[in-house]
Amino acid sequence: MASIESQIGCVVDSILEDYSNGRAIDRLEPYGHPDKAVIVEIIDKLLRLVYPGYSQDRTYRIYNAKHNLSMLIEDVMYNLSKQIALAMGTSDAKEISQQITLEFLGQIPKLRAVVQTDVEAAYDGDPAATSLDEIIFCYPGLYAITVYRLAHVLYEKNVPMIPRIMTEHAHSISGIDIHPGATIGEYFFIDHGTGVVIGETTIIGKRAKIYQGVTLGGLSTRAGQGLRGKKRHPTLEDEVTIYANASVLGGDTVIGHNSVIGASAFITKSVPACTTVTAKDQDLEFRRRNCPGCDKI
Amino acid sequence: MASIESQIGCVVDSILEDYSNGRAIDRLEPYGHPDKAVIVEIIDKLLRLVYPGYSQDRTYRIYNAKHNLSMLIEDVMYNLSKQIALAMGTSDAKEISQQITLEFLGQIPKLRAVVQTDVEAAYDGDPAATSLDEIIFCYPGLYAITVYRLAHVLYEKNVPMIPRIMTEHAHSISGIDIHPGATIGEYFFIDHGTGVVIGETTIIGKRAKIYQGVTLGGLSTRAGQGLRGKKRHPTLEDEVTIYANASVLGGDTVIGHNSVIGASAFITKSVPACTTVTAKDQDLEFRRRNCPGCDKI
Amino acid sequence: MASIESQIGCVVDSILEDYSNGRAIDRLEPYGHPDKAVIVEIIDKLLRLVYPGYSQDRTYRIYNAKHNLSMLIEDVMYNLSKQIALAMGTSDAKEISQQITLEFLGQIPKLRAVVQTDVEAAYDGDPAATSLDEIIFCYPGLYAITVYRLAHVLYEKNVPMIPRIMTEHAHSISGIDIHPGATIGEYFFIDHGTGVVIGETTIIGKRAKIYQGVTLGGLSTRAGQGLRGKKRHPTLEDEVTIYANASVLGGDTVIGHNSVIGASAFITKSVPACTTVTAKDQDLEFRRRNCPGCDKI
Repeated sequence: MASIESQIGCVVDSILEDYSNGRAIDRLEPYGHPDKAVIVEIIDKLLRLVYPGYSQDRTYRIYNAKHNLSMLIEDVMYNLSKQIALAMGTSDAKEISQQITLEFLGQIPKLRAVVQTDVEAAYDGDPAATSLDEIIFCYPGLYAITVYRLAHVLYEKNVPMIPRIMTEHAHSISGIDIHPGATIGEYFFIDHGTGVVIGETTIIGKRAKIYQGVTLGGLSTRAGQGLRGKKRHPTLEDEVTIYANASVLGGDTVIGHNSVIGASAFITKSVPACTTVTAKDQDLEFRRRNCPGCDKI
Repeated sequence: MASIESQIGCVVDSILEDYSNGRAIDRLEPYGHPDKAVIVEIIDKLLRLVYPGYSQDRTYRIYNAKHNLSMLIEDVMYNLSKQIALAMGTSDAKEISQQITLEFLGQIPKLRAVVQTDVEAAYDGDPAATSLDEIIFCYPGLYAITVYRLAHVLYEKNVPMIPRIMTEHAHSISGIDIHPGATIGEYFFIDHGTGVVIGETTIIGKRAKIYQGVTLGGLSTRAGQGLRGKKRHPTLEDEVTIYANASVLGGDTVIGHNSVIGASAFITKSVPACTTVTAKDQDLEFRRRNCPGCDKI
Repeated sequence: MASIESQIGCVVDSILEDYSNGRAIDRLEPYGHPDKAVIVEIIDKLLRLVYPGYSQDRTYRIYNAKHNLSMLIEDVMYNLSKQIALAMGTSDAKEISQQITLEFLGQIPKLRAVVQTDVEAAYDGDPAATSLDEIIFCYPGLYAITVYRLAHVLYEKNVPMIPRIMTEHAHSISGIDIHPGATIGEYFFIDHGTGVVIGETTIIGKRAKIYQGVTLGGLSTRAGQGLRGKKRHPTLEDEVTIYANASVLGGDTVIGHNSVIGASAFITKSVPACTTVTAKDQDLEFRRRNCPGCDKI
């Protein structure tokens, strides 16, 4: 029998040969791609910009806030524009990516005004919330929404790849999958959140409230890439609430303002404004179970 | 056009000005908060206390178990009491937080007795489990339950913020969202677990078994903060099983002992003891699909 | 009152005494177990083998691909065979584990051929996908499937524990729980994915497409360990699509080829080939909501 060394040599050769098949997965040059680990670090830095007092960076102090902020901004400026240039991959990418990053950072105050309303929405909407601090520290819904809001600004500027890497990172942390292309108004609250899916062409107005397991999705994907760019996901007008595990599907489906979709409802047609829609009570079957020694029976 | 440097300067100034708006998100002083990263480290250390042989700390050996355990306990004592003091934020927090931490650590043996029954419940309940080791190493349900049991002890001692940071960390890892305020009896098993939500005022008896996607939740949250402190989530008596994606909602809803709730059932009223409740078979529509060249048709 | 030191001493003694109860959780010897952190590192290295150009290891360059690949393979060879030996825990484990690891690595080219079809399936199936790169970088479904395919090779070689540690790690990252024992054909796509559960004895043919919240599960687990080794989960023939939040349950349930299961359908019986099955429209109740000042009413 061959030695371990020569057997390993055979494995190396066979894998190396396999890399020469010219398929997507055979690409060897890593330099043409953004770096996921760097983007995750950028997300953390952006969250420190958005929520300055909640940072774990113990060097950040109020008496030299400007100095610290400058360093943080320069860091993001350098790293994010580099990643954007990699993602764009064009010859003029360097200058454009700097400009995009500057514009992006310039929108942080506007974005923070919206994020503050999201924090308030969580506090107002959840009887289990004991303070705004608890929400900013702990709530996965706020985390996913904040990362989405940041990613959406880059998505709007046609930055490839990076917005999706950002929201998929938040998806991994929170179980909440918001496509960076979705349009979402202020004062948005997602409670619990695991399993929420908000598709690329979804439009959500102000003051929406959504619970775990809600899908705002497409009706059929049979046409695959043929559907690219079409409005496939629903529109929610202002002040809509959608309770746990409900699905609202289809690009023509509009939930009118101030309407409420009950838990586990399955909606594929528009709902007028100011309407509560609930699934009729399930027919349930009750059967006695054998319970030896049960004195309640 | 302005230089990059001056443009960055403008961004810094605009964000700095934005921090002076006096909103919750504008707080700059990080020292008044517990530190999430430290709490995640404490969770890992507590799990090493609970499951001593499953630790990745290769310095831990049986012949000097006492020495190692002492170091681990002192480490948790120091760090956890410091975090509790930060969370409390009162002038006498230091002494109280030491006392709370001591009492908390003193309850570990009692907690381990319960955790051992949770391990057994997973083994007895899952035909895919091949050993107790596999459960302790791999099962996200056991992870979420153990972190909840630790957090619940701190919740009972009125420690702010930290219990929720702990269970939300477990939520992120496991997809299982158990509020630290819930009351849960021994021999508890959650299988698969993604999407499970167990609300703050839920009460669960002994020997419960719950599957992925189950919500034990509230009926309506329209009243928001007005509902704080009220019993909003259901009660499960002993020996209750709830299959995948079922919802049991409402603070007055009681599932009687030894009862079983079928998959995808939607329950908003109490169920007597020793009863199996299943949703009646869905009306399904079957349509033939075109299948060119399909010789099965 | 006793000093803090003596109180800590009491806690140490009580926990130490508690470790001597002889329960599963009382095991103290960590050396007999595989190391989760090392296995997570091995997963990352295996993914670099599968997708060489998508790695974050910036030392990897095309002009010395063979050299780098050799080092990576030797690293995996050393670490994985050591972990397998620990998991096996038998006296002859060392030699067997080397042989298993070699055979495992020898199957990487075959596995990569299948993974390439999974990448194509995601692109063809999702109108939101803009490039193959985006899928390889961002899609949690592809991540979970790739880790499952790697773990399944080890599962087939009867390696204990490690395959499950691998798929549970992917479950934690993606919310998708695929048991390493499942059998899954090529060109497999899971979209969004949070909450997907694919049980141990599931069989899935080629070109399947599955959405978030789908359970391919067992019908009843009342018999617990008595069901071990029995076929408890369904079979999907080729070209089956299962839309979001549908459940297909039972070991005798077969979904015929080219069939489609609609969103939220609940299937416990076999479905013939070339058939679309949808849940009939839910009965919905519409109620007007009070809307002060709403001019739409």
